Amino acid sequence: MQTEVTPLLVHQAAERIRPIAQRTPVLSSHSFDAEAGVSAFFKCENFQKGGAFKIRGASNLVFSLPKADLAKGLIAYSSGNHAQATAIAARHVGAACTIVMPLDAPRSKLEATRGYGASVVTYDRFRESREPITAAIIEKTGATLIPPFDHPYIIAGQGTTALELLEQATQLDALIAPVGGGGLLSGCAIAARSLNPEIRIFGAEPERANDTYLSFRSGERVEVKPDTIADGLRSPMPGRLTFAIVHELAEDIVLVSEDEIRAAVKFLLARMKILVEPSGAVSAAAIMFRKLPAGVKRVGVVLSGGNVDFDQLAGL
Amino acid sequence: MQTEVTPLLVHQAAERIRPIAQRTPVLSSHSFDAEAGVSAFFKCENFQKGGAFKIRGASNLVFSLPKADLAKGLIAYSSGNHAQATAIAARHVGAACTIVMPLDAPRSKLEATRGYGASVVTYDRFRESREPITAAIIEKTGATLIPPFDHPYIIAGQGTTALELLEQATQLDALIAPVGGGGLLSGCAIAARSLNPEIRIFGAEPERANDTYLSFRSGERVEVKPDTIADGLRSPMPGRLTFAIVHELAEDIVLVSEDEIRAAVKFLLARMKILVEPSGAVSAAAIMFRKLPAGVKRVGVVLSGGNVDFDQLAGL
Repeated sequence: MQTEVTPLLVHQAAERIRPIAQRTPVLSSHSFDAEAGVSAFFKCENFQKGGAFKIRGASNLVFSLPKADLAKGLIAYSSGNHAQATAIAARHVGAACTIVMPLDAPRSKLEATRGYGASVVTYDRFRESREPITAAIIEKTGATLIPPFDHPYIIAGQGTTALELLEQATQLDALIAPVGGGGLLSGCAIAARSLNPEIRIFGAEPERANDTYLSFRSGERVEVKPDTIADGLRSPMPGRLTFAIVHELAEDIVLVSEDEIRAAVKFLLARMKILVEPSGAVSAAAIMFRKLPAGVKRVGVVLSGGNVDFDQLAGL
Repeated sequence: MQTEVTPLLVHQAAERIRPIAQRTPVLSSHSFDAEAGVSAFFKCENFQKGGAFKIRGASNLVFSLPKADLAKGLIAYSSGNHAQATAIAARHVGAACTIVMPLDAPRSKLEATRGYGASVVTYDRFRESREPITAAIIEKTGATLIPPFDHPYIIAGQGTTALELLEQATQLDALIAPVGGGGLLSGCAIAARSLNPEIRIFGAEPERANDTYLSFRSGERVEVKPDTIADGLRSPMPGRLTFAIVHELAEDIVLVSEDEIRAAVKFLLARMKILVEPSGAVSAAAIMFRKLPAGVKRVGVVLSGGNVDFDQLAGL
């Protein structure tokens, strides 16, 4: 396995995932820009197949597996969007797929994952650990694990988001993406820098899931206990591969409060008419509440997903 | 005043409104297409400035008025989106603007209209008639009335929606738009036919505001008492100019129920992650519930607006 994530790996991913991933549009909004004091270009991965960017990484890895591996099936553990993405990619290549998901994952995500034909195994995330459950299934079936972020092909796949964004919105001086495990941010950083070596890279993270923020400052991977409405960003610590890239290429990780995340979701819905899930809106929240240095004028903002229940939305 | 709406008038409108109107994106969705059995190309006027297509017509008329008229101010009566559009266009040229709105218009629309700097005069639509209120203000101020639909420049402005749609989505065999007073549908019909003389034109109307449907069948303008959640389509009868165009160019007007409208709004939000108001979604509802002839394969669908309160949304 190639372990270094190169721009070439991202460009190869773009070709590989073309049959399944959408080239999502980039939107802008005068009212958002007036609020934020910058020109923001929103990469709408909430419109992506499966409702989030995750299909990019999952399909890049799944499509590169040998047929013999696909025949033994695929497995993933995920709070949601990576689960759906793996299920969609598996169905595309006709592979069986098991997803290990927390019992309290948003209902829309559980249902969508089943809807894509995957077998869902649930667990209580307060009492059980997903790793041994997953390991036992792999032991029994020989299934291949599709990890959520810390794999070169996953990272390269997510990076295709930035390849498109920099083609669709020119002369950006910065790019910001949400950070959970760091797959999206690290892939986008590599892709964006390969097209524009000067572009400034920022990650946006909830205050209540600030593992990458703390890790970035200490230089070592730090583990936290996430407790945020941004359910897609509840990874307790950054990946080994993803953190090395983020640490090298990002200028900073900025934090947003739960209220700022809610305000961003509401603004995007009420004013821009797009539905973005809390995890997907942390990047917009960071811009809206002016967390970036004043010098940033034209910023690409990855809205990473849009899978949110009506109930959850009403409660925001 | 030129009274015939020609393709040239639409092309001139496209130039005139360029400083203010957005070129909105066209989206498509595999899940919608699977549901509807066609390829649908959604023209997202819910992303338009002011949240609806109305800015196209209002700015086309306002920008073509002599300065002496602008100095005496502008006035419009509207349940919402045309009000906001007129207010935005007036502000753009520095003209005073009065909007006569029903007391029970959606709060978001009342607030937005005031937010754009217009004076709002409200009336009780069950007890009062807006025409004499408007006439009294015109008598006093000499303001110019910006009518909501039945004017060649309004129709031509709305038609620019279809000019863009046919550039953005090629080889459409049909186009469908919501029908209230008929400004959008008539303008789009003229524009679309000028680019593709074979394209089939359909209007979508709520069953509970079926004035154009009845008029289309009888050949004469029929008045009804609208009672629909699609608040933007509550005009009691089609316009004189708009109906003549619709009658000549449309193949049919199709009806959707209130439940079908609700289902379309929910599908667009939950699956396509875009917020469309009930009025704006009647065209999508018509496609989703297969109201068009079976021969239609690639259809341009105008989603005409996205201004909906959270309360209204939660109640759907």
